Amino acid sequence: MHDVSYGPVTAAGFSEDERAAVYKAIYTRRDVRDQFLPRPIPDDLLIQLLDAAHHAPSVGFMQPWNFIVIRDETRKAEVHRAFTRANEEAKGLFADERQALYASLKLEGILKAPINLCITCDRTRGGKVVLGRTHNRQMDIYSTVCAVQNLWLAARAEGIGVGWVSIYRDEDMRQILGIPDHVKIIAYLCIGYVDQLYDAPELEKRGWRQRLPLESLIFAEEWQGAAELSSDRPRADPANASPAIP
Amino acid sequence: MHDVSYGPVTAAGFSEDERAAVYKAIYTRRDVRDQFLPRPIPDDLLIQLLDAAHHAPSVGFMQPWNFIVIRDETRKAEVHRAFTRANEEAKGLFADERQALYASLKLEGILKAPINLCITCDRTRGGKVVLGRTHNRQMDIYSTVCAVQNLWLAARAEGIGVGWVSIYRDEDMRQILGIPDHVKIIAYLCIGYVDQLYDAPELEKRGWRQRLPLESLIFAEEWQGAAELSSDRPRADPANASPAIP
Repeated sequence: MHDVSYGPVTAAGFSEDERAAVYKAIYTRRDVRDQFLPRPIPDDLLIQLLDAAHHAPSVGFMQPWNFIVIRDETRKAEVHRAFTRANEEAKGLFADERQALYASLKLEGILKAPINLCITCDRTRGGKVVLGRTHNRQMDIYSTVCAVQNLWLAARAEGIGVGWVSIYRDEDMRQILGIPDHVKIIAYLCIGYVDQLYDAPELEKRGWRQRLPLESLIFAEEWQGAAELSSDRPRADPANASPAIP
Repeated sequence: MHDVSYGPVTAAGFSEDERAAVYKAIYTRRDVRDQFLPRPIPDDLLIQLLDAAHHAPSVGFMQPWNFIVIRDETRKAEVHRAFTRANEEAKGLFADERQALYASLKLEGILKAPINLCITCDRTRGGKVVLGRTHNRQMDIYSTVCAVQNLWLAARAEGIGVGWVSIYRDEDMRQILGIPDHVKIIAYLCIGYVDQLYDAPELEKRGWRQRLPLESLIFAEEWQGAAELSSDRPRADPANASPAIP
């Protein structure tokens, strides 16, 4: 616990090397499905990652998250069955050509990753009225997603890959993990050391979708307002951010 | 655009200094309400921050986000009026003692921050069926929240503060920014240089709520399953992560 008597502190920008490290985490983070190594993750490192998640912003300082750490093979197998059932349903929703490509994609690492982690949001934690959630009931859910992203970036820095599994029926996962009604399941993550990562999102590399030009996504003042931003600064893309990447 | 012919690349953990920088961003990031400086943010730096957001994970590589950059004082004033109206409603929901404390808190920097940024989620972007969203319709919203957190951490590294305003009626903001029905407003952010930040969340320092012990939030195998994780590793809290913080 921090000493709350501290006042404001200097908020200077980071050094050039520090900034590069933050961008490196952001640009080289991947959604990992198949590259997990069996090497176990030590408890102290797992706690470090969970503590990074715990330092996400939260509405009204509500800290609505819980972390369910799953290592048991039997339970992982149950989750994997729930995925498989849902994935069969999902596959049928795509038209023929896409369906073949869809079927060729590996979309989870449930059994391969040494740790599975379910991150939940307890809607009741802050009491009935939560500062900042009065006009947007979703804010506690958004806080929990910020915790996921904190963990993901910290994991990247530690050489640990993370994959977010979203293909399962909510009621199946709820039953497998014994999650009560007032708690919402936000993310089911597969976590493990990796020694290889793609240099771009796997779905891009496999031809599922391409990255949109950033410029097309920026508006000025209002929806579809023409933005005239000029930049000579090179983007901190992976090629610049990390000398390890070709 | 990256050359998609690249194969997997080395995914080694970062150097000790790089890891420390990532944790420093995570632990010293704050929700800023009052510390914004008037100094303008150059276009190229703003684009850099938006590009960090654009490299968030997204379900089915959907990239559902848009970024509306607001600098016009008249429009900011409209947003501020929407906040004020909603905040009066919110204040009334707290009991007497909390209400006085609530009223003393500054909860936005709309007029003070040189840039306001609305981040939205276009629910239709990937077509009707989106890979990974078939069983969880919220996944595109979660992707957009990850983009917010990427931007927030990159901004911290650049010495730029971010505050997330959530107290407004959705229909007011929608009308002010001309946002169509198929687009969901996820975050309204105030962005500007800062020279001081609190060393802990402002709501903690002002006695609104305390940080929960991490250990109480971790379960093993199932909801409320006792977790026995052991750690001798010192947490990368601000006191360790940044020598600039007392």
